Amino acid sequence: MAGSTYGNIFRITTFGESHGTGIGGIIDGIPAGLEIDIARIQDDLNKRKPGQSEFTTARKEDDKLEILSGIFEGKTLGTPIGFFIANKDSKSQDYENISTAFRPSHADFTYTKKYGIRDPRGGGRSSARETACRVVAGSIAKQILSTLGIRFSTYICKIGSIELDDTSFFNQELIESSPIRCPEPQVSKKMEELILAVKKEGDTIGGIVHAIIEGVPAGLGEPVFDKLHAELGKAMLSINATKGFEIGSGFRSAEKKGSEMNDEFTSLSTTKTNNSGGIQGGISNGMPIHFKVAFKPVSTLLQPQETINENGEKVVIQPEGRHDPCVVPRAVPIVEAMAAIVILDFYLRNKSVTL
Amino acid sequence: MAGSTYGNIFRITTFGESHGTGIGGIIDGIPAGLEIDIARIQDDLNKRKPGQSEFTTARKEDDKLEILSGIFEGKTLGTPIGFFIANKDSKSQDYENISTAFRPSHADFTYTKKYGIRDPRGGGRSSARETACRVVAGSIAKQILSTLGIRFSTYICKIGSIELDDTSFFNQELIESSPIRCPEPQVSKKMEELILAVKKEGDTIGGIVHAIIEGVPAGLGEPVFDKLHAELGKAMLSINATKGFEIGSGFRSAEKKGSEMNDEFTSLSTTKTNNSGGIQGGISNGMPIHFKVAFKPVSTLLQPQETINENGEKVVIQPEGRHDPCVVPRAVPIVEAMAAIVILDFYLRNKSVTL
Amino acid sequence: MAGSTYGNIFRITTFGESHGTGIGGIIDGIPAGLEIDIARIQDDLNKRKPGQSEFTTARKEDDKLEILSGIFEGKTLGTPIGFFIANKDSKSQDYENISTAFRPSHADFTYTKKYGIRDPRGGGRSSARETACRVVAGSIAKQILSTLGIRFSTYICKIGSIELDDTSFFNQELIESSPIRCPEPQVSKKMEELILAVKKEGDTIGGIVHAIIEGVPAGLGEPVFDKLHAELGKAMLSINATKGFEIGSGFRSAEKKGSEMNDEFTSLSTTKTNNSGGIQGGISNGMPIHFKVAFKPVSTLLQPQETINENGEKVVIQPEGRHDPCVVPRAVPIVEAMAAIVILDFYLRNKSVTL
Amino acid sequence: MAGSTYGNIFRITTFGESHGTGIGGIIDGIPAGLEIDIARIQDDLNKRKPGQSEFTTARKEDDKLEILSGIFEGKTLGTPIGFFIANKDSKSQDYENISTAFRPSHADFTYTKKYGIRDPRGGGRSSARETACRVVAGSIAKQILSTLGIRFSTYICKIGSIELDDTSFFNQELIESSPIRCPEPQVSKKMEELILAVKKEGDTIGGIVHAIIEGVPAGLGEPVFDKLHAELGKAMLSINATKGFEIGSGFRSAEKKGSEMNDEFTSLSTTKTNNSGGIQGGISNGMPIHFKVAFKPVSTLLQPQETINENGEKVVIQPEGRHDPCVVPRAVPIVEAMAAIVILDFYLRNKSVTL
Repeated sequence: MAGSTYGNIFRITTFGESHGTGIGGIIDGIPAGLEIDIARIQDDLNKRKPGQSEFTTARKEDDKLEILSGIFEGKTLGTPIGFFIANKDSKSQDYENISTAFRPSHADFTYTKKYGIRDPRGGGRSSARETACRVVAGSIAKQILSTLGIRFSTYICKIGSIELDDTSFFNQELIESSPIRCPEPQVSKKMEELILAVKKEGDTIGGIVHAIIEGVPAGLGEPVFDKLHAELGKAMLSINATKGFEIGSGFRSAEKKGSEMNDEFTSLSTTKTNNSGGIQGGISNGMPIHFKVAFKPVSTLLQPQETINENGEKVVIQPEGRHDPCVVPRAVPIVEAMAAIVILDFYLRNKSVTL
Repeated sequence: MAGSTYGNIFRITTFGESHGTGIGGIIDGIPAGLEIDIARIQDDLNKRKPGQSEFTTARKEDDKLEILSGIFEGKTLGTPIGFFIANKDSKSQDYENISTAFRPSHADFTYTKKYGIRDPRGGGRSSARETACRVVAGSIAKQILSTLGIRFSTYICKIGSIELDDTSFFNQELIESSPIRCPEPQVSKKMEELILAVKKEGDTIGGIVHAIIEGVPAGLGEPVFDKLHAELGKAMLSINATKGFEIGSGFRSAEKKGSEMNDEFTSLSTTKTNNSGGIQGGISNGMPIHFKVAFKPVSTLLQPQETINENGEKVVIQPEGRHDPCVVPRAVPIVEAMAAIVILDFYLRNKSVTL
Repeated sequence: MAGSTYGNIFRITTFGESHGTGIGGIIDGIPAGLEIDIARIQDDLNKRKPGQSEFTTARKEDDKLEILSGIFEGKTLGTPIGFFIANKDSKSQDYENISTAFRPSHADFTYTKKYGIRDPRGGGRSSARETACRVVAGSIAKQILSTLGIRFSTYICKIGSIELDDTSFFNQELIESSPIRCPEPQVSKKMEELILAVKKEGDTIGGIVHAIIEGVPAGLGEPVFDKLHAELGKAMLSINATKGFEIGSGFRSAEKKGSEMNDEFTSLSTTKTNNSGGIQGGISNGMPIHFKVAFKPVSTLLQPQETINENGEKVVIQPEGRHDPCVVPRAVPIVEAMAAIVILDFYLRNKSVTL
Repeated sequence: MAGSTYGNIFRITTFGESHGTGIGGIIDGIPAGLEIDIARIQDDLNKRKPGQSEFTTARKEDDKLEILSGIFEGKTLGTPIGFFIANKDSKSQDYENISTAFRPSHADFTYTKKYGIRDPRGGGRSSARETACRVVAGSIAKQILSTLGIRFSTYICKIGSIELDDTSFFNQELIESSPIRCPEPQVSKKMEELILAVKKEGDTIGGIVHAIIEGVPAGLGEPVFDKLHAELGKAMLSINATKGFEIGSGFRSAEKKGSEMNDEFTSLSTTKTNNSGGIQGGISNGMPIHFKVAFKPVSTLLQPQETINENGEKVVIQPEGRHDPCVVPRAVPIVEAMAAIVILDFYLRNKSVTL
């Protein structure tokens, strides 16, 4: 109810503020006896962590994962997995000069309105630092799903107005060979240049992440309110800085005729096109699931901005904190993590459909 | 878990197949002693019902609402509201010639895969007929929200490639003066012509609905996983035929710089721009909430289509049923209903944030 | 959240006031393709309905079940089952003379405190009439469970101080051969005499129901908070007029030593004794599950009682309504129904424990 | 769904095995700005921890609480409270000689049946060690409730056949002056002697805990399925080793006539008797809430017991671990903790009943 829990059967609950002791979570609903490679979870965490490159914030966090329960000798026990990630480099002083001003398009104002208080140490719970916990749960989900033949390809397809045309299922190596996770080197180069140019201005830039999931069996998703793409949409829109979600042909569907849009069946497991994005009537049809998530530019700028403070007085702020000029490269593993959580949860839910 | 329930405190559960006895639902979590005008619920149902005009299916349904509990002498009792809407004009025979073929981009295939059986009487639970129940709950939510000063403006902003530029808060009279719910007469006319042209071909066309909610107090929404726009996204994407959702500047945000996107505070309750769409960090900021929902063209065409049947054999189908050439005009009240359900639910959730 | 829903996967939501149009509900989470005999549901409803004999209230209700969705040609569709039971004999006037007085140990007072209003037509939602909906869901659950070899024996084991010593698994015929559902004729006779004597005084009497469930496979129940007997306890204590629940040796366990209480394993599926009541660590062990539920005497008496009215003034009430001298015979099918709902729900939940 | 979460708005999720790194949890739904004294939480933990006296197990655990988030400078932030308690003295070797045998009336067998594996290090998740996390959440709830004037009195009222007649609201000092938490010194002495006698035999003994909650406002609890005493019952029955729960007059109600049982109103906030236990129709009436919880004797005996091993072969076990001769003294703070969690959760739920 208070928003820290996601999922029905495979379920994650998280805690932790950006500038407190650390962050962590509990993952419940994991079948017993499954092999989990903790090093691979750490790898996924490393993809999200700050300080990776000149394209991301300079905040230095190891994001070193501690597993506290639920895994013994490399296998799940069927009990909840508790985990913790300490905060190392949380400089609260970075926030002192803005502690009474409301940063534009940030959650300072709305959190203060909701809770009547303001954590003076910075973004607190609204910080994207919280998403590290999602990556832990998602990485575990991906390891389980891979034993079922389900695999992911998630990458940047747009930064500013620079767009990647090819929306194929790219492999991980190709994606990770780009410092910003755009699998086409030429396009990646242009995007990198744009990000650095924007960074130089103390400004930030938005972008779009594309995700493809192959190997999802037909039948996942629930009718009416819990359609698979509705839940994927919620999962993606719960990630910081998201402004839009589309499945399959998405917003372009609005311009299409039915005769252009319909995916003609070519066999009992394939369709000629995939405008549906692998989901029909809210239930997976066995074709690849593909969707896009729009991210706005980071709202914290390293240039002066006018705003008001808690007394309603006009002030100018210029944060000195360490922030990402573009959050989208680090959003890629988060999108993939949330997708894996949703798919595994629906996989387990679908088991209750038969006696 | 099986998908027929929506909401946390203000909660609707629905039942009923398109070609069975009827449809209905239960709305729980309604405060006691509130005045509810049942005639206004029926008015909202009439906006959604089939057979309204040449732009919608010819299926004739009165959609006559029967309230079975929870309201006494015009006021809520605090007990659940049970309601029923009989099916009148459900011609199962329309479906006989397609009963073994899988209709392209329809839910026939995925439901059969999921449940192992197929309701021979047509779309069953995947039919948009189910959305009438959402309109009932949403209409009640709107009546309650209006006493709190919260009001809605929901209309078509795009059909095919014809787009409405003006995204103001139009009043209900203006919206309803258009047979397709586009509040600008010139643009509406063009959209109407497009729909009729497409209908003549036995084809269908998609579109986009725009919704604005004014008067929402700051503080609604929960951090992390239950952000207000994430739940709005899920609610919208659970409506039949939706392919995308965007809040505020949506997908255009991806092209923007932070300095262009940020909404500068001008007072403790207003911002200069509203690219955020009234929500920051997942919590309402008191500015109008605005979002768009993309609808694909209806998948049932009245022209021949190739597909396969349950044995995997190629067949050609040409349904003779009565279907909408464009579902978007009838989707407008459904979008508004789901938005009202979400806002009221978060309003009641927010009450538990303080002792 | 507002209390009208029970269950996680197999889930019932109910509506309806005692003196309104009728009552009904929605059952979601039912696997598709299962045979359901509606006549058997009606049989179970008949066991609960008022006006059966001199031992129950004279209110005449047919409790005629209307199935509105979810079952087609005798089989489940996998869609929610909506159902309705009309109120026929709701004499609101019976309540007129008590409409401002708070009846002792009734819910008048607490409902008024909670909701700020009082339904002038009688017990409204707090009436045991609501339990008919539980019987519908439970009867469906029992039919499904019987295909899995799970069977129930539920009967009265105590009325006032008259107790049945034998707590065997009695068959339905034997139980139903007693007008009050006590399977031992001699004991039943004494109980019947006690109830009639109490009735003559305008008084009421309490009792205990004993339930045994055979054939439950080992492994049902979830660790920690959702232990099987904890959920059975909640389900039973949610029935009107219940004051206690005990599993296995129950309160007598408090007097025992471990060496007396422990159930020694005699094979991989049996124990020498069954003090555990078929559940260990919150999870079923394959032995019969057995528990008891204590019911207080009905609080509405047909003799004068002192109380206060809404203004805090002393008044004497003497209801003329038709009430049960002992609710326990009619509680038997309700206990069995709730037990079946719990067991089926945990059966389906347990399916998500493995991939 | 997998059982590690309790509560609707005030909600706790726990993790951790008895012989792993440690245990912990996340508490969500806590209003912001409330003062929390961490030392008082530690005091409550100390009441539950092992090694307190000759009446409890010799296992030495500091149960030192680490708060990881949600509290800053002594006040709640409105964010989830994450916490951790390290395991210090977990001697897995104690369990080696029983690692293939199923201990009678323990969860070894049922967990193995459910999960297909067995944690070789001992009770794992079924151990009562998990209840320390409940004490943390309950202690926080009690601190919040005390600001609302709600206070608890929880103590032992029966051990074996030795019973305390007086069920008054005893204060904490009196309760804690007894090493086993029985507030009447004479009776406490007899109970202590019984426990030590039983311990000498390598045997164990059960008992009953009585709880009284004063100051609960009228109106808490939800109708139908979520009655206040039903949820209290579930909460209590989810505690390890419980076999029964009764509210108010409980099982004795079954023997009573309505004229004896009914609680006559004497004012708009008081009744002459309190057989209802402070709850009518599932909703609190403002009178003290009182209930009893039955605990069985600990199943691990320090005397030889026959059982079978995983191959179905007869074996004799005689554990050398350190176990409680009577768990009831340590159960007292757990009962109080769960009661506080339930009351606070319903207090917050009740806030959504009005606009």
